[in-house]
Amino acid sequence: MIIVLKPEAPADAAQRLLDRIAGAGLKPLHMPGAERVVLGALGDERVLAELALDSDPHVESVKPILAPYKLVARDLHPHDTIVSIGGVAFGGRAVPVIAGPCAVETREQLFNSASAVQAAGAKVLRAGAYKPRTSPYGFSGHGPEGLRLLREVADELSMPVVTEVMDTADVDIVAAHADALQIGARNMQNFPLLRAVGRTDKPVLLKRGLSAKIEELLLAAEYILAAGNDQVILCERGIRTFETATRNTLDLNAVPYMKQRTHLPVVVDPSHGTGIRDLVGPMALAAAACGADGLLIEVHENPSVALSDGAQSLYPDQFAALMPRVSAVLAAVGRIAA
Amino acid sequence: MIIVLKPEAPADAAQRLLDRIAGAGLKPLHMPGAERVVLGALGDERVLAELALDSDPHVESVKPILAPYKLVARDLHPHDTIVSIGGVAFGGRAVPVIAGPCAVETREQLFNSASAVQAAGAKVLRAGAYKPRTSPYGFSGHGPEGLRLLREVADELSMPVVTEVMDTADVDIVAAHADALQIGARNMQNFPLLRAVGRTDKPVLLKRGLSAKIEELLLAAEYILAAGNDQVILCERGIRTFETATRNTLDLNAVPYMKQRTHLPVVVDPSHGTGIRDLVGPMALAAAACGADGLLIEVHENPSVALSDGAQSLYPDQFAALMPRVSAVLAAVGRIAA
Amino acid sequence: MIIVLKPEAPADAAQRLLDRIAGAGLKPLHMPGAERVVLGALGDERVLAELALDSDPHVESVKPILAPYKLVARDLHPHDTIVSIGGVAFGGRAVPVIAGPCAVETREQLFNSASAVQAAGAKVLRAGAYKPRTSPYGFSGHGPEGLRLLREVADELSMPVVTEVMDTADVDIVAAHADALQIGARNMQNFPLLRAVGRTDKPVLLKRGLSAKIEELLLAAEYILAAGNDQVILCERGIRTFETATRNTLDLNAVPYMKQRTHLPVVVDPSHGTGIRDLVGPMALAAAACGADGLLIEVHENPSVALSDGAQSLYPDQFAALMPRVSAVLAAVGRIAA
Amino acid sequence: MIIVLKPEAPADAAQRLLDRIAGAGLKPLHMPGAERVVLGALGDERVLAELALDSDPHVESVKPILAPYKLVARDLHPHDTIVSIGGVAFGGRAVPVIAGPCAVETREQLFNSASAVQAAGAKVLRAGAYKPRTSPYGFSGHGPEGLRLLREVADELSMPVVTEVMDTADVDIVAAHADALQIGARNMQNFPLLRAVGRTDKPVLLKRGLSAKIEELLLAAEYILAAGNDQVILCERGIRTFETATRNTLDLNAVPYMKQRTHLPVVVDPSHGTGIRDLVGPMALAAAACGADGLLIEVHENPSVALSDGAQSLYPDQFAALMPRVSAVLAAVGRIAA
Repeated sequence: MIIVLKPEAPADAAQRLLDRIAGAGLKPLHMPGAERVVLGALGDERVLAELALDSDPHVESVKPILAPYKLVARDLHPHDTIVSIGGVAFGGRAVPVIAGPCAVETREQLFNSASAVQAAGAKVLRAGAYKPRTSPYGFSGHGPEGLRLLREVADELSMPVVTEVMDTADVDIVAAHADALQIGARNMQNFPLLRAVGRTDKPVLLKRGLSAKIEELLLAAEYILAAGNDQVILCERGIRTFETATRNTLDLNAVPYMKQRTHLPVVVDPSHGTGIRDLVGPMALAAAACGADGLLIEVHENPSVALSDGAQSLYPDQFAALMPRVSAVLAAVGRIAA
Repeated sequence: MIIVLKPEAPADAAQRLLDRIAGAGLKPLHMPGAERVVLGALGDERVLAELALDSDPHVESVKPILAPYKLVARDLHPHDTIVSIGGVAFGGRAVPVIAGPCAVETREQLFNSASAVQAAGAKVLRAGAYKPRTSPYGFSGHGPEGLRLLREVADELSMPVVTEVMDTADVDIVAAHADALQIGARNMQNFPLLRAVGRTDKPVLLKRGLSAKIEELLLAAEYILAAGNDQVILCERGIRTFETATRNTLDLNAVPYMKQRTHLPVVVDPSHGTGIRDLVGPMALAAAACGADGLLIEVHENPSVALSDGAQSLYPDQFAALMPRVSAVLAAVGRIAA
Repeated sequence: MIIVLKPEAPADAAQRLLDRIAGAGLKPLHMPGAERVVLGALGDERVLAELALDSDPHVESVKPILAPYKLVARDLHPHDTIVSIGGVAFGGRAVPVIAGPCAVETREQLFNSASAVQAAGAKVLRAGAYKPRTSPYGFSGHGPEGLRLLREVADELSMPVVTEVMDTADVDIVAAHADALQIGARNMQNFPLLRAVGRTDKPVLLKRGLSAKIEELLLAAEYILAAGNDQVILCERGIRTFETATRNTLDLNAVPYMKQRTHLPVVVDPSHGTGIRDLVGPMALAAAACGADGLLIEVHENPSVALSDGAQSLYPDQFAALMPRVSAVLAAVGRIAA
Repeated sequence: MIIVLKPEAPADAAQRLLDRIAGAGLKPLHMPGAERVVLGALGDERVLAELALDSDPHVESVKPILAPYKLVARDLHPHDTIVSIGGVAFGGRAVPVIAGPCAVETREQLFNSASAVQAAGAKVLRAGAYKPRTSPYGFSGHGPEGLRLLREVADELSMPVVTEVMDTADVDIVAAHADALQIGARNMQNFPLLRAVGRTDKPVLLKRGLSAKIEELLLAAEYILAAGNDQVILCERGIRTFETATRNTLDLNAVPYMKQRTHLPVVVDPSHGTGIRDLVGPMALAAAACGADGLLIEVHENPSVALSDGAQSLYPDQFAALMPRVSAVLAAVGRIAA
């Protein structure tokens, strides 16, 4: 960690800070320059973060050198972690597709959507029983009854299923019905919820927050690992920017950037990442090309009557046409369809 | 609501959509133009939102006309709502200041900080017992013990207190100790939590999310009112932008914008809104000038050793020097210090 | 165009606005609703934009229905435009790669870099003689002498060359030396410059501005076409967001979005789009997968001593290893390497 | 400057970089840590920036310590610079208001608008003869004829006038007619234009770019000072964010932040900063409260027929009502109206 003092900082300020650094068990460094005095602290920066040296009135800025996450980093864990959702592996050479409708609406809608995506090659089912909605007047899911339908259809088709959990109070019931727990974008920094899913033995699909920096996503995953659960899949699903033509801006840069820094699998959700049906296909191909370990795609048996996210849901025949194209791109980059 | 069809949309698509609009009990309108067919739907747009007309493959875009919130809007509730925190009124001519440390650290730290801000004129105490921290290794608050200390000090000083609640499981215990419940920026769209605080009889201080549009903040408040609690204070605390010189970008535009559209009080937090101690004073004055109904300022008895947010916390003497300047600006715009 | 009146707008305000709409030769529509009066105007919205109806004190908002660009739109020009840079075609099935160093530094550096990229399959050379630099103390290019070297090397290798022009005063000399003119991100809304390159007979490579919406990029292209030059290639090169891990956020959503709305070719610059050498390859593959009509990649004979943009420049052997991977992805999506 | 090496960097990489640092005349520092090797370089960082050490394949990141601007910094120039526009001083205790219509439309419109703002207390006139417009079909100003009218009206009223210049080719003619030259937001990084106005003897009003970081604005000013002109006024006018309720997000944080770091005056434009007439007044007061050295406000004799920016222009009576409120706030913070 590098600590830059203000130009007018008195000499004893430097000494006082050096003493605090040494007192925390780190190695202090003194670098007096012509225009600024710079201090260094070598050692575990997480200890140092607790000292909050930037609170000192003589400190201009503090620049960390090491990444603030540890358990999720490749540094000490160089091999890729393989996360299995009901026997489907994410993080290896094979790239599975998770698909299904935004929400569980009816048994028929769910079954038809699920069997269509399975027929086209999807390996894991997705659908929500608890739906975060911007307005209190929107359809917010069928809750426990939705979970029951989800399990029933998943069993009938022998497809593992991932579904969102939004409240610590619901973690047990969702874990009892689903093969994997999804933390949605709006809850990426719901820290009690992260700790709660970290105490289960279910894999967690952790979506990037709308305005979360990559480092914050990795720290959110660190919460789950620190709580004891290392079965975490990271999901890039678009960030909020000034651009209004698309619902979100899919940040595919994040895929290779994270793959280089973490051993966890990274999947991409081009449905939320674009918000526009006609862009889902091209961005699914782009995600496959740049190293995604999986795809998450919304497909509804009839999007024009969907209760949520219809505008970004594929029709089953569009999904069926897309899958072989995804496979071709995967083959071109040395991966294979799961 | 205005529905724009794609250029190539067939004639029967328009008719089908008009039928759906009429079927939902709204008045349909047909506006065929040279380059596009445009449809209209007059009536309660919240009903229409459920039809999700933008899911239709022949629809290019859907443009709402009415605001999606209702209970929080000035339209049907033109008079300002006054929200009282332990007898201190927000939303009237008087403008109270809420102040205190970021977190409850020790009884002494809390008491010293609280009595200092009270002596300088603050009317409500703030301090956190549950702290959201980006890293799992940061100090996350003393929890129930912190709540107990908070109540004890608040009673000793006869100051009402507001503190953050982060989990539905904690709503009861926080409500039992605090005079008002704070929903933090990261939980602005934690919908189960919004509903839970909406079912209490405590006033709620609702902070804008890091990347929340103003409309989304108003819809988050709508959740609380829809659950039965109309004692909501909105808080502008800075948004996330590309600018890195400051921790956040304080969006003061939001203050007059919201005051014109909602009857709820709007307060400003210049501490988080800037993240830099030296900017807190000027931005507190700016907030007072543009119509804020209250201020929320972090003050620590000794910020250089604070466990969190020290870099943006004022020293007690800085706070004491600021308060008369705030009063002078309030007087200049026809308001008074509380 | 849809005009929404404020709730309290008097009846005669609507009539006055309808008269102005009719006076401009458009068809007015009156749609009185329960909560708001809505007006419509059918016809050429660009005429209407000049009326600036949103200036009226009784107007709440104005919602355009038609895209504000015309010449660049697919609507009236459904077939793809092929733009040729010195005989290399952009916009057809073949996808050419433009490569070279950020800046012309020396003849030797330019020749070595150019011959290396040509040997690896690049079809067009890029390098800057005029360099926009954030600081006045940065290397800003060799100017006319750089242009001379660029032409000389391009001729020796029989490679067409594209280079940036930053000032209307330099358009003639740049056009005399280059096969195509680049408008950089910072000049995307330099309207006199857009008009000036629109009056030349050289193809224009128009880069998206750091914070330009897609619609604004298309309107910038519209300036060039309106000035008489329809040889425009659009370039996605990353936008500015809150994310600081990468230099920019490459917005690949923009590629299929623009391809669906404009007949102009769209190329992608993964070098600026990421700012990090190790991400250039994966994002070049992603761009190829989602429909880019070309790639723009910075390659320097020795990036570690480059005078600018070294951190994002590939080494020649990295570029040579990337090219067959790009070809494989192109083949997988039905395109071919140029 | 701090240079962090990659974990796997070989030992000789550090030595090679230290040699380059020493070779550039700076003092090198070697700080080997447990997880990373860190290097330091003490001295003029602008020299170091040219070395582009971040291009080295073994370098993970480079962290500057000193600000990259020098001439505009308070460090070596602690006293406030006073910039005079035709005798009206910016940067002292008095705070002048610049007002007028967006564009010169007709002599009558300009004269009426100008005399109205003068009567209400504005000291400097503003109006555009060259208007940047997003669409090529918008009104782009009357050019030289507009300049002539502007000078004529300004002389008749004895008001100095500031107007925008967009092209190096127009600098002479604009400088011949105006008392100050405005660089608009879209040209903040038009470096040839910055250099050209830096060679004139006219004061320059430099507006912050739509997505310019504060540091970039200061570096743009540095271009002008480096070219020989130290009469620069900085203008905060709103930045582009995800928020769509307002046209821009006025970043008032920038005012005290810049005042603490530069000796140049800082003014605020609440008209562009909000884009909504009803917000201009409150944000003008906020700007006055947080330390702005001047205000820039659009006023049109009849905004509802303005050819540009009517939605954010005040009516003359609104402006007249605002001015005494601005004066009251200025007095409250120890400043005075000019």
